[in-house]
Amino acid sequence: MKPHSTLTDTICALATPPGTSAIAIIRISGPETFTICDSIFKSQKTDFSCKNESSHTLHFGEIKDHENTIDEVLISIFKNPKSYTGEDAVEISCHGSPYIQQQIIELLIRKGIRIADPGEFTLRAFMNGKFDLSQAEAVADLIVSHSKASHDLALNQMRGTFSNHIKDLRNKLVNFASLIELELDFSEEDVEFADRTALNKLLASLKSELKKLIDSFSYGQVIKKGIPVAIVGKPNVGKSTLLNAILNEDRAIVSEIPGTTRDTIEDVISLKGVTFRFIDTAGLRISEDKIESIGIERTYEKIDQAKIILYVFDVNEMKCSEVEETLGEFKEHIESLPNGITQDKKFILVANKTDELVESPHDFKHLVEMDCIFISAKRKENINLILDELSRYIESESVSDHTIISNVRHYEALSKSLEAIYNIEKGLLENIPSDLVAIDIRQALHHLGEITGEITNDEILGTIFSKFCIGK
Amino acid sequence: MKPHSTLTDTICALATPPGTSAIAIIRISGPETFTICDSIFKSQKTDFSCKNESSHTLHFGEIKDHENTIDEVLISIFKNPKSYTGEDAVEISCHGSPYIQQQIIELLIRKGIRIADPGEFTLRAFMNGKFDLSQAEAVADLIVSHSKASHDLALNQMRGTFSNHIKDLRNKLVNFASLIELELDFSEEDVEFADRTALNKLLASLKSELKKLIDSFSYGQVIKKGIPVAIVGKPNVGKSTLLNAILNEDRAIVSEIPGTTRDTIEDVISLKGVTFRFIDTAGLRISEDKIESIGIERTYEKIDQAKIILYVFDVNEMKCSEVEETLGEFKEHIESLPNGITQDKKFILVANKTDELVESPHDFKHLVEMDCIFISAKRKENINLILDELSRYIESESVSDHTIISNVRHYEALSKSLEAIYNIEKGLLENIPSDLVAIDIRQALHHLGEITGEITNDEILGTIFSKFCIGK
Repeated sequence: MKPHSTLTDTICALATPPGTSAIAIIRISGPETFTICDSIFKSQKTDFSCKNESSHTLHFGEIKDHENTIDEVLISIFKNPKSYTGEDAVEISCHGSPYIQQQIIELLIRKGIRIADPGEFTLRAFMNGKFDLSQAEAVADLIVSHSKASHDLALNQMRGTFSNHIKDLRNKLVNFASLIELELDFSEEDVEFADRTALNKLLASLKSELKKLIDSFSYGQVIKKGIPVAIVGKPNVGKSTLLNAILNEDRAIVSEIPGTTRDTIEDVISLKGVTFRFIDTAGLRISEDKIESIGIERTYEKIDQAKIILYVFDVNEMKCSEVEETLGEFKEHIESLPNGITQDKKFILVANKTDELVESPHDFKHLVEMDCIFISAKRKENINLILDELSRYIESESVSDHTIISNVRHYEALSKSLEAIYNIEKGLLENIPSDLVAIDIRQALHHLGEITGEITNDEILGTIFSKFCIGK
Repeated sequence: MKPHSTLTDTICALATPPGTSAIAIIRISGPETFTICDSIFKSQKTDFSCKNESSHTLHFGEIKDHENTIDEVLISIFKNPKSYTGEDAVEISCHGSPYIQQQIIELLIRKGIRIADPGEFTLRAFMNGKFDLSQAEAVADLIVSHSKASHDLALNQMRGTFSNHIKDLRNKLVNFASLIELELDFSEEDVEFADRTALNKLLASLKSELKKLIDSFSYGQVIKKGIPVAIVGKPNVGKSTLLNAILNEDRAIVSEIPGTTRDTIEDVISLKGVTFRFIDTAGLRISEDKIESIGIERTYEKIDQAKIILYVFDVNEMKCSEVEETLGEFKEHIESLPNGITQDKKFILVANKTDELVESPHDFKHLVEMDCIFISAKRKENINLILDELSRYIESESVSDHTIISNVRHYEALSKSLEAIYNIEKGLLENIPSDLVAIDIRQALHHLGEITGEITNDEILGTIFSKFCIGK
């Protein structure tokens, strides 16, 4: 991570994915942008200069290395402060050839432009006050969002909804602080300028809002990463067939859309805009009394992360009582894990292999009472009933109107801030000196400020922006 | 391939590579472009309309599906005829998220825009007279060029150098034709309007120019695909080590450039802007008298395609006379192939494993006289001498100033055109009736016209543009 002082040079990077395509974009930003572009870009207009053109205009011409033409390109001109970074910036739209991209970037480097660090364009935008730190973080989240819910969350955050919420909280705390600090100045005189009832009310409201945000984190994480679903059951009950059937259902929906990277979402489906992430439970033997190996233990730990468990059995083999028994054992096993709990999990009972039934299931009525779903994974029958059940989970846990946080850094800062608020409350209750209370107030303010980047340092910025992609 | 008449609708496509990145571009072209963009793009300017804005301007705003914001984007406006396609066009520069790309493209489809066929933007540019067919073909060549030579060739062709050459030839032939056709009108009267000496001179010049172009094809192919190099020799003489050493030399040069797709060029190096393509010769047993299997025969056929042969032997094992003998056998073997010739190949003798020498080679002086290069592939010693030798090949075969063709379609059209010219010449010589000569002239004109697309049909266009990437 470069210290801020070096953010005054001119940087460039390929902003589109590497590879061959119709168009590639090379992004340039910094004080020398226009001078250097003028030295390599030749328009048909003989007296062309980026400096003389208006911001937000496009120009056709050639990128030339002396007499050698590298490509015919379009350049976009963005003038400080009306660019993404807030600096003078140019985007070169060239043919999507790796050779051409390389040649242009090499030429820019020879002209004294530096290759940008990951996220450096966004870092500069932050440094130049184009947006705050949580908005900058949302840019990276937005780019990797794969579902409507995570996309909407990131877009909202990018547009400042969350920042404004934090700023409101911070302003309340600043009001509170100013009253307390006033007391501090007159502490010798033992006066209480701040109305304690009003102070306590303010604290209660801060606590409640912080708690709500902190509580939203687990849901935010689920939105961002997908709701973990485990398919469990004895060997050969058709778990893989079921997974494939579920994934296929989804593929049928998305297959017509070009440009979707299929290989990264192989065990993920999206239902009503929410991602469900299937946990690999290969190797689990549900009915074993003894744990055979660490491998199986690990599988249980993975299952424990699931929010939804599809409990699959072969309807031809298991009697209802056996299902209840093995399910009970399974739940017990989960609960025996260090942090294992089953109450927060939704169990969906799936009776598979209806295609092999020669007569009604052993105890059909009882299975129906248990809300069992009868399917044939092999024939892809009734898979939609499972999907409906998954959707119902989303509705019961639906995104409320309040702000949702999904970022670990925000979660930690909010938790620390809440801790400081508790200390303030305690301090006021115990009537400890105002100057000590003031320390906790500053702590609470500090942690809230970390979220939006009002308070920051090179290390935090380095950590945040190194996760960005090149060219952003 | 759609018939031309359907080129009047509005199309869209992702123009950047699929995947996650800073920026992605979605391209839209056709008569409904502005109307549809106005319905989904919301600028801060309340009365914004693409139609009211100037061509070549950029606008910040949001892509909205009713109340649902998909992304904050920049749109570029290009007004008919000042766009790539010659139609009204818009480029949406959105965040490089596959989810967002998909959402925007789905929205455009719902608004009645069709996904473009591969190369359809360029096809439209051709249909609207933005450039001719050989220039359009050069766009695709330019995008896949991986070396300076192939890049320069494609860029030259895209800028019309080749087209102008063909048009010159065609004009000459048209002049010729008009004279001949004039005779045709008066054929009853047995007059010769066309000066036969001038005609013959024109024909000779046409023939010579066509031949030059046709001859340039094999060099053009080499530039486009790389100069094929085979590394041959007995097992365990260090062929693979040598190949790795050569490839490593090159990697050191390109490794600092971001965005280079390494996996597609694994057996290719670029020297002074020319690509050398290494042919896999695994399995060849050079000293075998009998061909053991078809596999080895195929290897020989592959070697026969090579322009350069690196003939490697172990300097510790082979005497000079043996090298000469096995090399002779090897050449004989090549010549025994149906089309095998060795005269057009450059042989480079490589004496490997100098690191294992305990004393001077068996016949050092003689080996030097044979221009043998002494190397240690293992220690990467003297590899540069081989690279120098490869470079020298380029210089001896250097790109001359005349136009070089690299496209099979052009090669075939030129060959057919030349054939017709021969027929014209023969016809004139044998004094056959002018109306028969005129048929050959029309043939020659027809084939030249095919190159630039003055004469074309849906099938040819379909074949050409289906090879393009999506979005181009």
